[in-house]
Amino acid sequence: MDGLRAFSIRRVTNAGTERITDQIAAEEPLAIVVKHWQKDAAVTTNLAVTMRTPGHEKELAAGLLLSEGVIRGLEDVVEARALGSQPSNEVLVELARGVDFEAWRLARNGFVSSSCGVCGKRSREAMRQDLPPVQEGEFRVAARVIQALPAALRARQPTFEETGGLHAAALVRASGEIEAVFEDIGRHNALDKLMGWALLSGRTPLRERFVFMSSRGSFELVQKAAMAGAPMLATVGGPSSLAIETARELQMTLVGFVREERFNVYSGEWRIDS
Amino acid sequence: MDGLRAFSIRRVTNAGTERITDQIAAEEPLAIVVKHWQKDAAVTTNLAVTMRTPGHEKELAAGLLLSEGVIRGLEDVVEARALGSQPSNEVLVELARGVDFEAWRLARNGFVSSSCGVCGKRSREAMRQDLPPVQEGEFRVAARVIQALPAALRARQPTFEETGGLHAAALVRASGEIEAVFEDIGRHNALDKLMGWALLSGRTPLRERFVFMSSRGSFELVQKAAMAGAPMLATVGGPSSLAIETARELQMTLVGFVREERFNVYSGEWRIDS
Repeated sequence: MDGLRAFSIRRVTNAGTERITDQIAAEEPLAIVVKHWQKDAAVTTNLAVTMRTPGHEKELAAGLLLSEGVIRGLEDVVEARALGSQPSNEVLVELARGVDFEAWRLARNGFVSSSCGVCGKRSREAMRQDLPPVQEGEFRVAARVIQALPAALRARQPTFEETGGLHAAALVRASGEIEAVFEDIGRHNALDKLMGWALLSGRTPLRERFVFMSSRGSFELVQKAAMAGAPMLATVGGPSSLAIETARELQMTLVGFVREERFNVYSGEWRIDS
Repeated sequence: MDGLRAFSIRRVTNAGTERITDQIAAEEPLAIVVKHWQKDAAVTTNLAVTMRTPGHEKELAAGLLLSEGVIRGLEDVVEARALGSQPSNEVLVELARGVDFEAWRLARNGFVSSSCGVCGKRSREAMRQDLPPVQEGEFRVAARVIQALPAALRARQPTFEETGGLHAAALVRASGEIEAVFEDIGRHNALDKLMGWALLSGRTPLRERFVFMSSRGSFELVQKAAMAGAPMLATVGGPSSLAIETARELQMTLVGFVREERFNVYSGEWRIDS
C-alpha cells in the first residue's frame, strides 16, 4: 500500500548481524495548492509543503484548510483533487467564490499552522539543498555502546518517567558518555535545543559526537542533525522512508529501534563496530 | 521544574473513579525574534512562534536557526537571550553583521521549517481566537466504550502493526462504532485527513462523533478537533498542559492514557457515563 516502503537494512542482535528487508512508514512531501478568487480573477497560490505519509491527499488538504480556518464547511470547497500521476505529491483545493483567502492570509501574517508540519519550502530537492554532506572521517561506535543507550537515557530523563509525555534528545560521544540531554513535548524542539546548546557551547560541527533520541526518526530529525554536522542519528523508534533516503544520500549513519538486545542499521553501517 | 504542570483530573478505572493530581508535560508558545542587519540598520523581526516545553529558550532558538540554515556556526550569533520575566515565552537572537537574513528569508519564500512546529501566529490568544466553542448538547459516551477503543483501533490499523511508525486518527460514534481511520507518520496529518474526510463527506460539524488518536494529545490536536466541531478527543498517550487548558476553555471533553482497564479525564467529564 501507499503507506509502506521496503528497504534492505542490517539488523544487529546479541547473536550477530543479518541483512533483512524491512517495511518502513512512507514519508513524502505534499505540495498544497489553493485556487481562490481575488475580485473577478481566479488565482492559484502554492500554499505550503507538508511532510506526510502518501494517501488521501485531498482529505489532508481539506482538513488542513478546515483546521486553519480558511474554510468552515463543505460549501466553501468547489473541488479537491490530487494533481499529476498517482500517487501524487501535489493537491489542489478550489475554494468557493465567497471564501476570502487573501484576508485569511493577511490576518495570519504569512501562512502557517500550529505545530503542524507545514513548511514554505517547495520541494524535497529544495529542502535538501542546504544540507552539508557528513564529513568522511574516523568516527566509529561500538554496537554495545548503542545497545546501552536506552538505559543511559532513562537515567538522565526524569521528566519522562513522571509524565510519559516528553521526548528527549541526547548528545553522545563514541565512548557512550552522554554529554547533554534536552526534553520537549516536540521531538523537533528537543533536538533544536540540543543542537543550539552544542552551537552556543562551541561544539559544532559535531563530528565526533552523535545524537540519540527517544522518538521515531523523521526526515526533519535527519536534517537537523546533518545541519549540525552529526555523523550519526540513533532513535528508539523506527525511521521514515525519507529519513532513510536522506541519511543514505548524506552518508549519515541512521540507527533505529534501539533496544538492549538489538537495533537496526538503515544507513552508514561502516561506522558501527560489532 | 519548568517542564511540568500539576492538574487536578479524574481517573476512571474498573474499580470506580477518583480525583487525582497529575503531572503534565508543559506546552507553551515561544516567540522567536531575530535582530539582524539590513545595510547599516539593525532590524528586529518576529520570525515565528513555536509550541514547545518551557526551558532552554536560547538553545531552542539557536538550534532552530542552525537547522534552518540561517546561521552556520557560533560566529554568526552575537547573543541569544530570553526576554522579559522568567520563565520567558519570548527569545531574541542577535545575528552577526555578516549574516544575510533577508536573503535567507526571500529564498525560503516566507518562513518556515520542515515539519517543525513553527507557525506564523503571534500568540496563544491569536491562535485561539478562531476556535468555535464546542456546542452544548446531548452528546454522551459510556466509559466502557472508551475502554474498548484501543482494541478496536488496533483491529483497524494494519500498517502500524507492520512498521510501528504510523499514527492513527479515528472517527467514532457514541456507540463505539469506528466510522473511519486514517494513518500518517505525523499525528497532525492523520487528524487532518480524518477531518478532511468528514468535511468532504458532509459530516462536519461533527457534534455526535468524537476523535480517538493513537498519539499523545497536543494543543494542535485539540485545535483541529475543535475546528471540526468535535465534542471530545481521546488519545492513547497523555495530553500537554496547553491541550488541557484549551479543552477546558472550549468545554471539550479531553481523555488520555486510554487503556482497557482505565483512562484519565482532563476536561468535560460530564459527557462520560460510568
